[in-house]
Amino acid sequence: MHATIDDESDLSIRTMRSSVLHPDGGLTVEDRPVPTPGPGEVLIRVSAVGVCGSDTHYLRHGRIGTHVVETPLVLGHEASGTIVAVGGGVSRSRVGERVSIEPQTPDPASDESRRGLYNLCPHMRFYATPPVDGALCEFVTIGAAFAHSVPDRVSDEAAALCEPLSVAIAAIRKADVGMGDSVLIAGAGPIGLMCAQVARAAGATTIVVSEPDPDRREVARRFGATDVVSPGATVDPVGAFIDASGVEPAVIGAMSALRPAGRAVLVGMGTDTMALPVSLIQNREIVLTGVYRYANTWPTALSLITSGRVDLDSMVTGRFGLDDTRAALDADRIPGSIKAVVYPGMPRHPTSGTDRPTPTTDNT
Amino acid sequence: MHATIDDESDLSIRTMRSSVLHPDGGLTVEDRPVPTPGPGEVLIRVSAVGVCGSDTHYLRHGRIGTHVVETPLVLGHEASGTIVAVGGGVSRSRVGERVSIEPQTPDPASDESRRGLYNLCPHMRFYATPPVDGALCEFVTIGAAFAHSVPDRVSDEAAALCEPLSVAIAAIRKADVGMGDSVLIAGAGPIGLMCAQVARAAGATTIVVSEPDPDRREVARRFGATDVVSPGATVDPVGAFIDASGVEPAVIGAMSALRPAGRAVLVGMGTDTMALPVSLIQNREIVLTGVYRYANTWPTALSLITSGRVDLDSMVTGRFGLDDTRAALDADRIPGSIKAVVYPGMPRHPTSGTDRPTPTTDNT
Amino acid sequence: MHATIDDESDLSIRTMRSSVLHPDGGLTVEDRPVPTPGPGEVLIRVSAVGVCGSDTHYLRHGRIGTHVVETPLVLGHEASGTIVAVGGGVSRSRVGERVSIEPQTPDPASDESRRGLYNLCPHMRFYATPPVDGALCEFVTIGAAFAHSVPDRVSDEAAALCEPLSVAIAAIRKADVGMGDSVLIAGAGPIGLMCAQVARAAGATTIVVSEPDPDRREVARRFGATDVVSPGATVDPVGAFIDASGVEPAVIGAMSALRPAGRAVLVGMGTDTMALPVSLIQNREIVLTGVYRYANTWPTALSLITSGRVDLDSMVTGRFGLDDTRAALDADRIPGSIKAVVYPGMPRHPTSGTDRPTPTTDNT
Amino acid sequence: MHATIDDESDLSIRTMRSSVLHPDGGLTVEDRPVPTPGPGEVLIRVSAVGVCGSDTHYLRHGRIGTHVVETPLVLGHEASGTIVAVGGGVSRSRVGERVSIEPQTPDPASDESRRGLYNLCPHMRFYATPPVDGALCEFVTIGAAFAHSVPDRVSDEAAALCEPLSVAIAAIRKADVGMGDSVLIAGAGPIGLMCAQVARAAGATTIVVSEPDPDRREVARRFGATDVVSPGATVDPVGAFIDASGVEPAVIGAMSALRPAGRAVLVGMGTDTMALPVSLIQNREIVLTGVYRYANTWPTALSLITSGRVDLDSMVTGRFGLDDTRAALDADRIPGSIKAVVYPGMPRHPTSGTDRPTPTTDNT
Repeated sequence: MHATIDDESDLSIRTMRSSVLHPDGGLTVEDRPVPTPGPGEVLIRVSAVGVCGSDTHYLRHGRIGTHVVETPLVLGHEASGTIVAVGGGVSRSRVGERVSIEPQTPDPASDESRRGLYNLCPHMRFYATPPVDGALCEFVTIGAAFAHSVPDRVSDEAAALCEPLSVAIAAIRKADVGMGDSVLIAGAGPIGLMCAQVARAAGATTIVVSEPDPDRREVARRFGATDVVSPGATVDPVGAFIDASGVEPAVIGAMSALRPAGRAVLVGMGTDTMALPVSLIQNREIVLTGVYRYANTWPTALSLITSGRVDLDSMVTGRFGLDDTRAALDADRIPGSIKAVVYPGMPRHPTSGTDRPTPTTDNT
Repeated sequence: MHATIDDESDLSIRTMRSSVLHPDGGLTVEDRPVPTPGPGEVLIRVSAVGVCGSDTHYLRHGRIGTHVVETPLVLGHEASGTIVAVGGGVSRSRVGERVSIEPQTPDPASDESRRGLYNLCPHMRFYATPPVDGALCEFVTIGAAFAHSVPDRVSDEAAALCEPLSVAIAAIRKADVGMGDSVLIAGAGPIGLMCAQVARAAGATTIVVSEPDPDRREVARRFGATDVVSPGATVDPVGAFIDASGVEPAVIGAMSALRPAGRAVLVGMGTDTMALPVSLIQNREIVLTGVYRYANTWPTALSLITSGRVDLDSMVTGRFGLDDTRAALDADRIPGSIKAVVYPGMPRHPTSGTDRPTPTTDNT
Repeated sequence: MHATIDDESDLSIRTMRSSVLHPDGGLTVEDRPVPTPGPGEVLIRVSAVGVCGSDTHYLRHGRIGTHVVETPLVLGHEASGTIVAVGGGVSRSRVGERVSIEPQTPDPASDESRRGLYNLCPHMRFYATPPVDGALCEFVTIGAAFAHSVPDRVSDEAAALCEPLSVAIAAIRKADVGMGDSVLIAGAGPIGLMCAQVARAAGATTIVVSEPDPDRREVARRFGATDVVSPGATVDPVGAFIDASGVEPAVIGAMSALRPAGRAVLVGMGTDTMALPVSLIQNREIVLTGVYRYANTWPTALSLITSGRVDLDSMVTGRFGLDDTRAALDADRIPGSIKAVVYPGMPRHPTSGTDRPTPTTDNT
Repeated sequence: MHATIDDESDLSIRTMRSSVLHPDGGLTVEDRPVPTPGPGEVLIRVSAVGVCGSDTHYLRHGRIGTHVVETPLVLGHEASGTIVAVGGGVSRSRVGERVSIEPQTPDPASDESRRGLYNLCPHMRFYATPPVDGALCEFVTIGAAFAHSVPDRVSDEAAALCEPLSVAIAAIRKADVGMGDSVLIAGAGPIGLMCAQVARAAGATTIVVSEPDPDRREVARRFGATDVVSPGATVDPVGAFIDASGVEPAVIGAMSALRPAGRAVLVGMGTDTMALPVSLIQNREIVLTGVYRYANTWPTALSLITSGRVDLDSMVTGRFGLDDTRAALDADRIPGSIKAVVYPGMPRHPTSGTDRPTPTTDNT
C-alpha cells in the first residue's frame, strides 16, 4: 500500500525502510526515521531508483577514489518520487507533485554556484557520496528547486533516469556537439548509450560508438549510433570524442581520430592518470576536458524525454524491490543488462494485483 | 539533350541560354558566351535553380536597397549542377561531380575572411547581386571550394536548396538554439519553414511559428512547428526568436516573449529602421542580431539533408524551364506555393519522355 | 565617535539615522530601527555611499520606469562599510571586516541564478528600488556572500564605487573588449568614464569617448580615453560600442561606426524605444545587447582596484554628510562634478579634528 | 649600403646571401637567387630575424618531430623587412612599406581556413619548416596579406618579434585570460616572458611565473610577472595555466593549482606524451588545450606594441650578422640571453659608420 502522508504531524514518529551499505560490505534493509525537510526543502516518497555503476563500485570496493564508506551509507542517486511534505518557505501546493530528483545540494553562495557552475561547488553535498545518504529508501529530502516537476506522461523510471541523462547532456554540451556534427563515443554502457541518444537529439548525424562487446554494439544502434566499431578500428575523422569507457587506450586512440580543433570529453571514470598525446593536443589544438556531474540540465532532460527525442524506458532491463537491492546492484553481471531500477515502495512480498512491477529482469 | 562537354576546347566557342533581367524590367532569354573558369574555379552545368524572394523583388522593383539593376542581370543564386570543366590549379578529377553551389566569392585575404566570417567580406562578389550575374542560365563558374560535392541520393532540387537552408542554419546558430530549447519563428514563408526545420534538427523541442495565413500555418506543422499561432497571439516565454517576416510589429511583439538573456535574430528583410524596445533589451539583457547570408554552412546543410533531418524536396511546389522564368518568379502569387525551381537544361518545348520534369506547379 | 557594536543584544533597541525620500519629494533624516540580519546575512555599518544618477532621478521624478516611490524610501546603492554583526549560519569571524556591498538579493533557486545570471532573477530585491530600502543610513543588511571583503589599501570611497565599476565591467564583458581592441563610448558621465577605465584595463588600445561637453571630454582623457570627439564626429571603425549616454542619435550614429560582427552594448537609460538601423544590424551582423546591473563582477572589480588598473578615488568630487543628502543628490549640477559620496557616519556638525572629511566639493 | 630595388627587371638576375643549414649540420652562407613573388605575393628585403628555439633545435638535432632536414634549409621565421616588389594582383603602392612577416601560407580553400583556423590548415607551408625555406637571407616572399604594415615608431626588431608575440597572444586567448584574472606561467624563456607580457596587457592582475633559474625569475618581473616562484612551489589557485616549459612535472604540478573550470594551455614543446591527471581534469572540469602557431594575431600584436602595452625591444639581448648565424643560434647558451636577432643586411665586415648595429650581445 502506498499511503500518502496526510498528516504531517505523523512524520516525526514514522520510520521508513532503507537499504544500507555497511563498511564491511554488508547490505541490510533497516528501519530508519523518515527525514524532516529543512527550510527550503521538500520530502519525497521515492518511486524509482536507477542503479549506477558507482553504486555497484561502492558495494564491491567500499570506496571511489577518496570517498570511503566509513559509516553505514544509503546508496542510490538516480531517483524519482512524489512530494509528500514541504519545509519552511516552500509552497504547500507542491505536495502531491511527481518529481525527478537532482541529487545535489551545492552552497548557493560559493563562487562556483554564483557563476552557474554549481556542480563544481566545493561545499557540495551529493546523494550516496559518503557520508551523505542516497535514495535507496522510502523517503528523501532535497532542496525544493532540485525536485523537478514531471509531466504525467513521463514514467517513474524515466524520471529517475534524468540523472544519468543529465551526465550525457553535460557531456554533449561540453563536446559542443550540434546539428550535422560527427562524434565518436567510446563505450556502450548506460552512459555511452545515453550520450549516443543525446548526440542524436542534438542533431549529430554521424555517431560512431566504439565497444568491444558485439551485443552491446548492436544495442548501441538502437539508441542512436549510426555506426559501431570495435576498439582500435580506424574511423573517419570526427569533430568530437566522448569517452564513456574510462579505458586509457580507448582515449588515446580516439584522440587521433579528432579533427583539428576537435573536442574530447572524459566522462568515464578510470585510472587517475593517462599517458596522453600532448603533441597531438598541441598540433591540432584539441580541447580536452571532463564532466563532473552536471548543472542546469534537468529542464533540457525533461524536454528531451517529453518530446520523445530520447527513450529512457527502453533502457530499463531489470526491476527490483528494496529487499533485492544486492541483486539490483549486481545486475550489471547479467548479459544484456543496461539499467536496473529499484522500487523502494514495492511490497516486500510481491503479489498479483500490485500496481508495481514484480522483481524481474528482462534478460533471463 | 544534356551533352557533357567532352572537349574543353569547344568551350570558348559555345554559347548558352540565359534568362536576363533588364533595367526596364523586361525578362528575356538570350544566348551568351559560356563563361571560362579562371584559376581555382570550376565550370558548372546548372541543373536546378530555386527562386528566392530577392529574385522576385529585383524583377518587380529593379533594386534591393542600394543594389540597383542598372545593366542586364542574370538572376538566381540557389543552384546545383555538374562540374564540366576546371580552371588552373583545380584537379581534373572533379569533372563530372554533382555539386551544390555556394554562390559567393569573398576575398580570402580580407580581415573578415581570415577570421572565418567570409560572408561579411567587404569585397564579396555574390550571384545575382548587381552587377554580378547569377545562375538562371546553362553554365556558371564558381571557386572550386564553393562547389560542394553532393551524394547521389540528394536530388538536384535539394542540392539547389542548400542555399536557403544555409540561411536557416546561420540563423539557428546565431540564435544558439540547441537540444530541448524553445524558439519562436515569425513568418512561414520559405525561410521561416527552413528555420523551423533546422530548429527541429538542432534539437529544439518547442518550435512556435507565428504566421497570419492559416494555410501557411498548417504547412508549418509539416516542417517542424510544434505549435502555430497568429501574429499578436500570446505565447509562452521562449529562449530564442527568429524573424523571417521582416514585419516590425512581429519583431517588437516577439521580443517581449523572450526570456532573460534570450536571443533575437533578424533574417527577414523589411524596413531599414525599426522602433525597438531598448529598455526591454537592457532589462532582460536580450541579444539582438541579424544574419547576412552565411559562412561554413554547406557541410552542415548536406549532413542534414543526407541524414533525412531536413526535407527539402517536399518544399518544391513548382517546376519551370528557363523560358518560363517569369512564371517561376511570380509563383509566390500562387496559393500554396513554397518554392519554385527552374531547370535551365529543360528542353525548350517539353515533350513526353524527357528525364526532366515538365513545367508545372503543384498548386493548380 | 564611531562605536563598534560590541554587544549584539543592543541591536534590537538601537536606532539609526536614515535619509528618507518621501512620495511627495521631501527628503528627511529620520531615526529608524537598526535592521536585524536574517539567516545568512550580515549587518554592516555604512562607511560611504556613492550617489548614482538613478538616486537623483528618484528625487526629482519620484519614479524610474515602472518603479514608483509610493512609500518612504531610503536611496543609495553604491556602498561600503564594516560588518558589525552576523545572522544565523554566518561565521562570527567576519565581524570587523571592511566590505564592499553588492546591493542585490536574488533568489538562488531561480532558473537565472542557477545559470549564473542572477542579476536577471525575477525575484530580485535590490537596494533603493521601491519598495526596498537602500544604504543612505547608518546600518544595512545584505547576504553574507554579497558583502565582499576589502583590503586595507582600498579606500571606503573606492569600495563603495565597486558598484558603478561593476556596471562598467559587465558592459565591457558584454562588448567582448580585450587586448588590442577598439571601442567607442558615448557619454563621459560617471558610467562612461568607468567604462573607459575598464576598457583600458581590459587591454583596449583605442578608446574613443564621444561627449558634447568639452570639459568632460578632457576629463575622459584622464580616465582612459585615447581620443575624444563630439557627438556626430566621424570616427574610424571600431569593434565595440558602449552607450553610456541614453541618447538615441548617439546610439544610431555609433552603430554605423561598428565593424562587421561588431558589438553594441546599451548601458545608459534613456527612452523605452529607439528607431534602430535593423538593416545595418543585419548586413554587418552587429550584435546589440544591454546590461542590467551585473553578476560576478566584484572579484574582478577588487582586483582592478588593488592592482591600480582603475582609479576610483580620483572620481570623487564631492563629500557630504547624511544631513546634506539633498546637496549630494544635486551635485550633478555642479560643473566638473563626477561622483558625490555621502558618509552616513559623518558627525552632524562637522568639527575640526574629525577623522571624516567635512562636507565639500572639489569643484566650487 | 641598403639599395632599394628600383628596377624589378633586375630581380631575376640578382642573387642574395642566405644562411643555409645542411642535413649534416653544417651552416653556410651561400649565394642563392632572389625569389620571385608569385601572384598575390610580395618580395621583402629582410631587416631583422629573431632566433627561435626551434631554429636552434634544427641546428643541433636536424629535426623537430616528424620534420627532418633532408635537404639544405634556410632557418628563421621571426622576420621583418621592407617590400621591394609585388607579384600579380598586388598594388604597387605597397613597395617601400615596412612590414612584419606572418610566416605562413595556408590554403584559403581548406575547411580550417574558411572557419578562421588557418593555422590548422593541413596544406600549410611555413617558413623554416622542411622543406620550406625561412628568412635568414636577404629576400623572402610571402602572401601580401601576411606582410603586415608597421608604423614608423615600431623598430625592425619589434616587427620581427611580432611572431613569438603572436604565439603568446594565441596562448592568452586560448587561456581566456582577461581583466582581473590570475594566471600561472611555467617557464621564463622568451615565450614565457612574452606570455607574461601579454597576460598583463590582457588585464591579468596576478601573473605568477614558475622558473628554476633565479636570474630568469628576476627577468620575469621586468616583463609582467607579479610573482615568481621555483617549480614545485605551492601557489594560490589560479584561473589559467600556460606551459611555456615543455616539462612534464611542471605541467602536472601546475594543473593541481587550477581552479574549477580553469584552463591549461600547452605552448612549450616537450615530449610527445605526458602522464596527465585525468581524474583532476574531470573532477574540476579543467579545460586542457594547446596552441599551434596562431591565426589573426598580427593586428593585435601591432596594437599592443604601438600602444606600449608590451615591450619587445628590451627582449633583444644579442645582435648578429648573417655570417654569425651560428653564434646567433647558440646565443641561448649565453647567460642572460633572451632573444638573439640576425640582420641579414648587415655588412659582412661591419665598419664604423654603419646604420646597422654591429654583432654584439648584451650579456657578455
